[in-house]
Amino acid sequence: MANASLLDETLKSIIPVDTAMTELAQKRLDSLTKPRGSLGRLEEFARRVVAITGDKRPTLKKRVIFTFAGDHGVADEGVSAFPKEVTRQMVYNFLSGGAAINVLARHAGADVVVVDMGVDFDFDDAPGLIKRKVVSGTGNIRKGPAMTREQAVQCLEEGIRLAQEYASEGAIFGTGDMGIANTTPSSAIIAAFSGLPVEEVTGRGTGIDDAAFMHKVQVIKDALAVNRPDAKDPIDVLSKVGGAEIAGIAGLVLGAASLKVPVVVDGFISTAGALVAAELKPEVRDYIFAAHNSVERGHAVMLARLGHRPFVDLDLRLGEGTGAAIGISLVDAALKIYNEMATFGDAGVSDSGA
Amino acid sequence: MANASLLDETLKSIIPVDTAMTELAQKRLDSLTKPRGSLGRLEEFARRVVAITGDKRPTLKKRVIFTFAGDHGVADEGVSAFPKEVTRQMVYNFLSGGAAINVLARHAGADVVVVDMGVDFDFDDAPGLIKRKVVSGTGNIRKGPAMTREQAVQCLEEGIRLAQEYASEGAIFGTGDMGIANTTPSSAIIAAFSGLPVEEVTGRGTGIDDAAFMHKVQVIKDALAVNRPDAKDPIDVLSKVGGAEIAGIAGLVLGAASLKVPVVVDGFISTAGALVAAELKPEVRDYIFAAHNSVERGHAVMLARLGHRPFVDLDLRLGEGTGAAIGISLVDAALKIYNEMATFGDAGVSDSGA
Repeated sequence: MANASLLDETLKSIIPVDTAMTELAQKRLDSLTKPRGSLGRLEEFARRVVAITGDKRPTLKKRVIFTFAGDHGVADEGVSAFPKEVTRQMVYNFLSGGAAINVLARHAGADVVVVDMGVDFDFDDAPGLIKRKVVSGTGNIRKGPAMTREQAVQCLEEGIRLAQEYASEGAIFGTGDMGIANTTPSSAIIAAFSGLPVEEVTGRGTGIDDAAFMHKVQVIKDALAVNRPDAKDPIDVLSKVGGAEIAGIAGLVLGAASLKVPVVVDGFISTAGALVAAELKPEVRDYIFAAHNSVERGHAVMLARLGHRPFVDLDLRLGEGTGAAIGISLVDAALKIYNEMATFGDAGVSDSGA
Repeated sequence: MANASLLDETLKSIIPVDTAMTELAQKRLDSLTKPRGSLGRLEEFARRVVAITGDKRPTLKKRVIFTFAGDHGVADEGVSAFPKEVTRQMVYNFLSGGAAINVLARHAGADVVVVDMGVDFDFDDAPGLIKRKVVSGTGNIRKGPAMTREQAVQCLEEGIRLAQEYASEGAIFGTGDMGIANTTPSSAIIAAFSGLPVEEVTGRGTGIDDAAFMHKVQVIKDALAVNRPDAKDPIDVLSKVGGAEIAGIAGLVLGAASLKVPVVVDGFISTAGALVAAELKPEVRDYIFAAHNSVERGHAVMLARLGHRPFVDLDLRLGEGTGAAIGISLVDAALKIYNEMATFGDAGVSDSGA
């Protein structure tokens, strides 16, 4: 199976980061004109990028946010406040630069790469659109699998290929998603892996009322009962109750980790993708940054499972990569601190050693 | 009293923001291509700037972080891990651009204005240094008042004057501090206003051990017992157990509010200043943004009293205005969202109304 080998090779090539580099980075941070540790998580971000890249003085030379788009058959069950057509409408909005992710990516100095992984619409060629369609919308997970195992692997490998295409020295990636109804498969994924009751990992997505929420919970319960995903087989979970854009994100995260590129993971849907990647290969956790704490309930459960504390909590629940853009800006700030501050010696400032 | 009148006039001119502008801003936010409210606090920041400035489409045209420096007689009690000389050494570091605030201000597109309000050192004239010295270090608050009531008012008015000098259309201010030992007066201030036990509002500053912490708590208890600040008279609190740079920050906040300039308040010491301003005139709360949640214990108590939720929690405990720089960058992002995103109508995207 030619397809399986790219995934297998990628998984094999992911290794833990070098903790000696972490120590080296902290040593430099401790020489800068500030009390030791006083820049808190900015210091953490800097030393993690040093450890990830193996570069003693890393700077961000290329910032790319990948916004993966896909449709979901389960949208037919009325689990979202928006009609399915909005997925493709928003793809056009991304391409014309008017969406939130465009604005926040510009703010962070990042490019937005829009990837059609599974939209139920045939796009013409357009500047900025990367066409890697594996499915034209997934199947309705309440009635059967989202996609076949082969399709899930194909999506993962498209994500890996994108990482390979965009990786370079000084690169940082961000993940993003667009797919009406995609909080439903994301909740199904964390419910499958964690075994927690569906109610505890399900939120209100883009904004649904109490009755619609109860219905959404039931749809996810049905999806898990019909598909019986095997929590010990992440690709089984991904193919049965996941989605094409979630699989693309998982692949991008695997590819980034294999290439030692830091990857800032956006909110609930992106974290579902990162979680699939980490269930396939726990070492990917060393390479990811959790951008923000989403309003979606299941997100905190995912983050705890990944062992990551999000950068910020700004009550975001949009997706697209918006939180990742803010996260990239903070990593940038952290690396500027690391590279640009004066040392105690340079500045003639007395060091307490504390 | 000529001096008192600037303060009195300023206090009189501070009025609540126009909530009609808040509603107008939310209306625009709801027309943008995203589910309503899905950008959470970024939406809050944008509508608050609209309400503060009265500008329907505000952008940040000038960003200024004021780093107020002052020395503290209480440093003689050994409450800090660093020697007092570090205050003036760090002023020089700010002026040469090598400190954390310089790096993070550049990241946020902000200028740093360094103000000597009370350093115990005679600086020569230097580019970027604003000399408004009111005291050459405060008195040791364990033994008596930090300064006279007149000196406290003078510091407040210097802060107001700086706000007047730098205010312009599209301006945003950030506050910052430098002063070895200044977590001690800041804890004393919140203890005085809140009546809470000193232990509950005292932290470890730049990094002191258990024994030094116990000693610091005792020093603050002694300062409150010796000076008996009147919680109902904020200038009494400020003059007896505060500091010159804290007073300058309080004045800047008052000045900003009187001129309808949004002001992003940094961590523990800056929030002590903002708290004094809010105790003098509760309406200033409408004009301030709380940048971050400091590691210092008393900070959360101050923020609760101000009714503000901080933007981020990055375990910062440096001061200088570093958190304010990150906060200004987030306000900037929020205003870009507000101004640059496409509306549902523009982009041809279906609106759920949710």
